[in-house]
Amino acid sequence: MRFPKIIQNLIDQFNKLPGIGPKTSERLVFYLLKQNKQELKEFAQALNVSAENITVCSQCFNFSETNPCEICSDKTRDKTTLCVVAQIFDLMAIENTSEYHGLYHVLGGNLNPIEGITPDELTIKQLEERIKNNGVREIILALNPDIEGESTIVYLTKILKPYKIKITRLARGLPMGSNLEYADEITILNALKGRREL
Amino acid sequence: MRFPKIIQNLIDQFNKLPGIGPKTSERLVFYLLKQNKQELKEFAQALNVSAENITVCSQCFNFSETNPCEICSDKTRDKTTLCVVAQIFDLMAIENTSEYHGLYHVLGGNLNPIEGITPDELTIKQLEERIKNNGVREIILALNPDIEGESTIVYLTKILKPYKIKITRLARGLPMGSNLEYADEITILNALKGRREL
Repeated sequence: MRFPKIIQNLIDQFNKLPGIGPKTSERLVFYLLKQNKQELKEFAQALNVSAENITVCSQCFNFSETNPCEICSDKTRDKTTLCVVAQIFDLMAIENTSEYHGLYHVLGGNLNPIEGITPDELTIKQLEERIKNNGVREIILALNPDIEGESTIVYLTKILKPYKIKITRLARGLPMGSNLEYADEITILNALKGRREL
Repeated sequence: MRFPKIIQNLIDQFNKLPGIGPKTSERLVFYLLKQNKQELKEFAQALNVSAENITVCSQCFNFSETNPCEICSDKTRDKTTLCVVAQIFDLMAIENTSEYHGLYHVLGGNLNPIEGITPDELTIKQLEERIKNNGVREIILALNPDIEGESTIVYLTKILKPYKIKITRLARGLPMGSNLEYADEITILNALKGRREL
């Protein structure tokens, strides 16, 4: 399709986004063009405001409007506990429980040599710095229980052992609302191994 | 999830787009935030430029940088033939064949009383004005051969009959590369009815 240059440019911008192909981009752009001009301007404004105001916290690598971020600069939080997560989404998920009061450390992903994610790509060095300098007493490895997450846990445990601090990981077992009959063997095995006395 | 207000605002903008749910919006926004600031600004710029420069052609209702649009103001094109399409995408599809040299008229959809698209929602009045004033000799109804398209063709034929101009519709039959064995009955019936002497 040959669109006017300006429209094509906007389509290309959408097309750069992950999971948005050329056809979807066209539909999104034509949807936007049919809206009020004001809608497009508000969208542009939201992008500009984000570009100008959102920064990465230099301590925990969370996105934030301030540096250090709101969580790192909250004096009521327990600075001796660090919860290590792969992605900011994971941080948000834990934060939503409202039950964790320590700080976070966003790794920026899990180790995945096939996709070229080596330890240098992650914020592991910065994590070590924080442990050395900030009196951290416990590291909670809140990584996904999948192949990448497990390898990252193994690697981090090895790296962090010399610091002689408590290293924990999230419990593995049956999720709420699940059904023993349909649970996979590894989940059941983990649930058995991690059983607790009542 | 509770994101910083600025990020939430950007997520909401994406969430307004058709087919983009809240989870997808979050992923898109976090993908963008991880990019260079410049990328976000370019995206915002593309939106602003579109908001400021793209207008609807007052003759054919195509999107364009000029009014009348490039097609309507092209003096080499045959102004006596109007190709009526439902959507701008359909116009682009026909334009891409490079074989049609008349003008277009974008209806803005097909009649669909269930979804509240009545004749008043479409640019039918404007089509009649063009026929009255511009010496149009042929109207090609290039609408989709589905229920909505067929109803719109029936309606338009009735409305346009009094103008005593040639009204045609796109041929129905077997599409290129198709297989008789798997074609549906109506397609085969249409192909038989519309058979041409060699």
